[in-house]
Amino acid sequence: MNRNEITEQIVVARLTRGLTWQELADAIDRPVMWTTSALLGQHPIPPELGKQLVEMLGLDQSVVPVLAAPPMRGGLPTAVPTDPTIYRFYEALQVYGGAIKELIHEQFGDGIMSAINFSVDLQKKSHPSGDRVVVTFDGKYLAYDWVSAEE
Amino acid sequence: MNRNEITEQIVVARLTRGLTWQELADAIDRPVMWTTSALLGQHPIPPELGKQLVEMLGLDQSVVPVLAAPPMRGGLPTAVPTDPTIYRFYEALQVYGGAIKELIHEQFGDGIMSAINFSVDLQKKSHPSGDRVVVTFDGKYLAYDWVSAEE
Amino acid sequence: MNRNEITEQIVVARLTRGLTWQELADAIDRPVMWTTSALLGQHPIPPELGKQLVEMLGLDQSVVPVLAAPPMRGGLPTAVPTDPTIYRFYEALQVYGGAIKELIHEQFGDGIMSAINFSVDLQKKSHPSGDRVVVTFDGKYLAYDWVSAEE
Amino acid sequence: MNRNEITEQIVVARLTRGLTWQELADAIDRPVMWTTSALLGQHPIPPELGKQLVEMLGLDQSVVPVLAAPPMRGGLPTAVPTDPTIYRFYEALQVYGGAIKELIHEQFGDGIMSAINFSVDLQKKSHPSGDRVVVTFDGKYLAYDWVSAEE
Amino acid sequence: MNRNEITEQIVVARLTRGLTWQELADAIDRPVMWTTSALLGQHPIPPELGKQLVEMLGLDQSVVPVLAAPPMRGGLPTAVPTDPTIYRFYEALQVYGGAIKELIHEQFGDGIMSAINFSVDLQKKSHPSGDRVVVTFDGKYLAYDWVSAEE
Amino acid sequence: MNRNEITEQIVVARLTRGLTWQELADAIDRPVMWTTSALLGQHPIPPELGKQLVEMLGLDQSVVPVLAAPPMRGGLPTAVPTDPTIYRFYEALQVYGGAIKELIHEQFGDGIMSAINFSVDLQKKSHPSGDRVVVTFDGKYLAYDWVSAEE
Amino acid sequence: MNRNEITEQIVVARLTRGLTWQELADAIDRPVMWTTSALLGQHPIPPELGKQLVEMLGLDQSVVPVLAAPPMRGGLPTAVPTDPTIYRFYEALQVYGGAIKELIHEQFGDGIMSAINFSVDLQKKSHPSGDRVVVTFDGKYLAYDWVSAEE
Amino acid sequence: MNRNEITEQIVVARLTRGLTWQELADAIDRPVMWTTSALLGQHPIPPELGKQLVEMLGLDQSVVPVLAAPPMRGGLPTAVPTDPTIYRFYEALQVYGGAIKELIHEQFGDGIMSAINFSVDLQKKSHPSGDRVVVTFDGKYLAYDWVSAEE
Amino acid sequence: MNRNEITEQIVVARLTRGLTWQELADAIDRPVMWTTSALLGQHPIPPELGKQLVEMLGLDQSVVPVLAAPPMRGGLPTAVPTDPTIYRFYEALQVYGGAIKELIHEQFGDGIMSAINFSVDLQKKSHPSGDRVVVTFDGKYLAYDWVSAEE
Amino acid sequence: MNRNEITEQIVVARLTRGLTWQELADAIDRPVMWTTSALLGQHPIPPELGKQLVEMLGLDQSVVPVLAAPPMRGGLPTAVPTDPTIYRFYEALQVYGGAIKELIHEQFGDGIMSAINFSVDLQKKSHPSGDRVVVTFDGKYLAYDWVSAEE
Repeated sequence: MNRNEITEQIVVARLTRGLTWQELADAIDRPVMWTTSALLGQHPIPPELGKQLVEMLGLDQSVVPVLAAPPMRGGLPTAVPTDPTIYRFYEALQVYGGAIKELIHEQFGDGIMSAINFSVDLQKKSHPSGDRVVVTFDGKYLAYDWVSAEE
Repeated sequence: MNRNEITEQIVVARLTRGLTWQELADAIDRPVMWTTSALLGQHPIPPELGKQLVEMLGLDQSVVPVLAAPPMRGGLPTAVPTDPTIYRFYEALQVYGGAIKELIHEQFGDGIMSAINFSVDLQKKSHPSGDRVVVTFDGKYLAYDWVSAEE
Repeated sequence: MNRNEITEQIVVARLTRGLTWQELADAIDRPVMWTTSALLGQHPIPPELGKQLVEMLGLDQSVVPVLAAPPMRGGLPTAVPTDPTIYRFYEALQVYGGAIKELIHEQFGDGIMSAINFSVDLQKKSHPSGDRVVVTFDGKYLAYDWVSAEE
Repeated sequence: MNRNEITEQIVVARLTRGLTWQELADAIDRPVMWTTSALLGQHPIPPELGKQLVEMLGLDQSVVPVLAAPPMRGGLPTAVPTDPTIYRFYEALQVYGGAIKELIHEQFGDGIMSAINFSVDLQKKSHPSGDRVVVTFDGKYLAYDWVSAEE
Repeated sequence: MNRNEITEQIVVARLTRGLTWQELADAIDRPVMWTTSALLGQHPIPPELGKQLVEMLGLDQSVVPVLAAPPMRGGLPTAVPTDPTIYRFYEALQVYGGAIKELIHEQFGDGIMSAINFSVDLQKKSHPSGDRVVVTFDGKYLAYDWVSAEE
Repeated sequence: MNRNEITEQIVVARLTRGLTWQELADAIDRPVMWTTSALLGQHPIPPELGKQLVEMLGLDQSVVPVLAAPPMRGGLPTAVPTDPTIYRFYEALQVYGGAIKELIHEQFGDGIMSAINFSVDLQKKSHPSGDRVVVTFDGKYLAYDWVSAEE
Repeated sequence: MNRNEITEQIVVARLTRGLTWQELADAIDRPVMWTTSALLGQHPIPPELGKQLVEMLGLDQSVVPVLAAPPMRGGLPTAVPTDPTIYRFYEALQVYGGAIKELIHEQFGDGIMSAINFSVDLQKKSHPSGDRVVVTFDGKYLAYDWVSAEE
Repeated sequence: MNRNEITEQIVVARLTRGLTWQELADAIDRPVMWTTSALLGQHPIPPELGKQLVEMLGLDQSVVPVLAAPPMRGGLPTAVPTDPTIYRFYEALQVYGGAIKELIHEQFGDGIMSAINFSVDLQKKSHPSGDRVVVTFDGKYLAYDWVSAEE
Repeated sequence: MNRNEITEQIVVARLTRGLTWQELADAIDRPVMWTTSALLGQHPIPPELGKQLVEMLGLDQSVVPVLAAPPMRGGLPTAVPTDPTIYRFYEALQVYGGAIKELIHEQFGDGIMSAINFSVDLQKKSHPSGDRVVVTFDGKYLAYDWVSAEE
Repeated sequence: MNRNEITEQIVVARLTRGLTWQELADAIDRPVMWTTSALLGQHPIPPELGKQLVEMLGLDQSVVPVLAAPPMRGGLPTAVPTDPTIYRFYEALQVYGGAIKELIHEQFGDGIMSAINFSVDLQKKSHPSGDRVVVTFDGKYLAYDWVSAEE
């Protein structure tokens, strides 16, 4: 069973067993966003954690080493996402991507926000006009730097 | 001169005049992210603000009413961005988009983060291993709701 | 069985059992457009309704929790639909999309019609030159508003 | 000057002269949605109406015969629209397109809603939770019919 | 078994049983082009005809109601067809599409040839330099007409 | 001036001068469909005919040799046409392309309809339910034949 | 079993049985390029030849009539081939396609090389700097000719 | 003037001056296919040859150094060519690409035909059923070889 | 079992058996990069090596001849890779591809780096600011050379 | 003049003035690969260096501040490059991308090669069978690390 097939099984097993992502994350004591993306096939899951999750989800222990390998990442079925909940983030990038780039350059210099030394956080925050979804992308600043390995 | 042509002029004029986005934002007393995206063609700019910006940038006052109209939004030249600084956000969506969707549903219900009742914030934050780019997407939660206008 | 596989089973089961979408909607007392899109995989179906529908369609009750989860939305097999009945709506968007945008801005301001706080209605209306399909898209107006969560 | 170039001029001239789409429509006594889409390059404009509009907008009268010819229709710059105000209609088609198709077939038979014998209407309707954008697509039902010209 | 799977079975069964499309059409007394496209999944097949065809092809009678439902139309595996026999028609559209559009407008007015109130005919015609394939697209002229349902 | 630029000039000049495609075709005594597609940039126009057309349209005689060269053919701005009048033919190909292929094979053998030894004809035909657009694609049958040049 | 599935079986069976394409071609006394492309699903295989090939490859005789039908042609999994051996021909078309077109027109007139009345040949030829792959595309010249069937 | 703009000028100038590709090739004593593709922007043209060609075509001598630089190659405006004369070669690749690959492997081993150490030739050959276009792709065989530079 | 299915089995079997790519390469005494890409379906594996690998991985020996055939190469599931580890190389090509091309031309002449007479090497090199991934693409220079086979 | 227009001018001016990339790099004492990619629009050029380069190339000094701003990166005109010299690197990624990913993970862990803290080097190396192009991609290893800014 390859990683994609395991992910499909995880998605269905979680619903059938009535487990929340938070419960799965708590069981392995890892952040819920990391746990969810890992279970959706986007991160390797260390074997000791994999064993626990596989047991909770009722899957076969033989999938543990496959879960432990760095996966082929990229979870969107189309280049432009069609699901509205995901699309809004793509839209935000269409509308604000250019401005984010300009301000990273203005405040930090010529470089990027790392998506590897990186974390995402999602919070429910209140506001008089209704609750808000607050998603924070937090990545190390990496300056364009022309470096070569030492000989 | 249409909005795209005006945007091209703004980009060059800002550099030639040596103005920062922050200075432009301060002059009109609006958030710098909003001001930058507006000047990059993604938001209408109210005439009284447009006049000030146009003067600072040395453009013709005839562009003010064009800047004041809601623009055709969407600022990326290709569906998948090629610029590395912007791409990292697309990559984060590829890797974490599915998980963000799941957690919005788990914590809020079946709905989305609005990209309209929405703001973006960019902060430089420190960390022992190097400065971090922290970008916050903050949108009102909208629940899927089957509503019709009253007759 | 994942949601897509369940949807395929629903489509065939409905035809084999000779049920109309209206009959399915009436059984759970929900609008027929909502019911149809939900059964086609575009909305979560609350467990108590899911149980009834699954029974009517002769599917296995084990699919109920999968039906109850918010699905990965987006039901068109290609970005530009090929089916003529669906394509006409895409064509209307090609021809009238720009004008709809302009008039939303002229009558409401800079904003959008929500597709989340939203309903669709389809009516058969008469006309001397032949019956008409009248489809109403009814969404809450959302103004572009630069709002942040309170600290 | 070809039709696209004329459209670009119209867009800028309308803003510079401070004319609303409604004023332009009233001047020629045609529905505002039709007038707007025609001025955006999606319909031929009869010469007598074209002359009036061209004069109001301060364009050259030589464009009147070009405006009067059926244009190459299709106004979206990309197959999937990026502008949020237009995108919501594409999204509605992704989510409800399959259901709309099913219900047209259930209520009318095997056929389509014409996008040619067709009108679009946009209304602002009130609701306790906020104003609503109500867009009605109204097209003649056309049944699939295997007809041949008479010899 | 969904419609696509049934179509695959029909294609193989026809060849294995050595039936021509003409024989299948004659058996149900319908035009051969209609019958062929219907059996290839592009039209609903009324149950009484479906029963006959299913029997001739040796398929299971349980597929009859699925054949009787309006299908998701669009039979080309890629947007630009790769099969040479089909491609030539796409090529003709590339080369003559603009001219066909112009002449429809010149001879009929601003409108289209319906592809719904429509038939296709294929004839083998002789010519001194070799037989010719003559394909006739015959659709009702539909004028652009801004009509609304009566209240 | 390259062929595309000449085509743009022709399109505007024809409208401004109030010439029909039929009048242009009659002037050079060629079929109107051939003439229209040639003037739209899809066929070379022999110099003696080019001179007449260029004069009628008021263009510069220097374009005659460019018109006389075989052009880079393919007149659709997108792979899938967006203009409704042209799209219906693409749609017909989606719905009937597979059936046309099957019937060419059944009636002629393994081969194609040539799009080179080929003509298109458009007729207005009457029918009790309304006029019909009848477009005939008429191409020589070419059998797949594994032939090599003689040494 | 449809044609694609049969092709997959042929590809594996040939390797497992250790047969060369040349041996398969010799067995049926047809050119090796034709035989190879036919076995890869690009040509119908007459039943008497199909029987021999199917026996050599150890497949089921029931596939013979499917092999005998004109297939849906087009063997590349992506529009731009990724396999380097195939890609070089696509690259040659990118670099020399325009020139080939010009020289066909200069030496023959306005027309094409047929890909139907056509053969391909591959030869290994020697050269002091190393063996060469020489592939010859040999097609009948077809002049653009506006011909109609006789009434 | 960049290379693309020069190419456009060459195309028009050749027609206006009534020069054949063969005459241009003869003037510089190079193969006509090479000369044509070079003038269409696909090869650098050595300065001494460039000077002659530029003079024959009546262009400005300042373009000579631009013509002498290796160009950005790739001359097709779309990934899948729309021009029928060029398309037939793409089609041949769709139909015979897989077989060509297999036979290169069978006759030479695991490798490719070089498109760099390469020439193309076009011949007009006679045949009782009509003249034939014979295009020969002639490239050095390159075996997959895992070689590294010497340290 | 075709090559793709074998590759999927290899990927899972390696993880389940806890083998490193280096161990697999050592067992057959081939470079680890070559071995890895071959096992991922990008190179033929000579039977004697295939037997060893298949045994180590616990697959069926019947796959050996399929592994020994030159595969259909091209291992990326999308034209633009989504996996971040692979994407960085695509990004490097976006940013430095033009410069690499210019410097190959400046230092070698008009030609390319062969990707066939070619090897890739990956090294871990140290640097005060952290370990570095050093990937070397090493291909024979091939000059554009207009060569034909000898008659 | 925007950055793209400046790049076009640089490309032509370098050729017209007969300057090598190496000479330009030497003049500003920067690596030639960095200098070339910067002049091709992929890096900001510090003003003091920009002034020198602009003078050598004979451009207007007003472009210096535009050259000094971080550009919108991404230099390939199509997602899959068509130029053969660039394409070979894309091909190498298709063939070896999966293996490079696996070996980065095996030798370093779950992470990537940075394309920001990064340099490229191109060397001409000798080999008995011909000179070799050796391109080294040298980037800092970045481990996937779930880090957040400190509050």
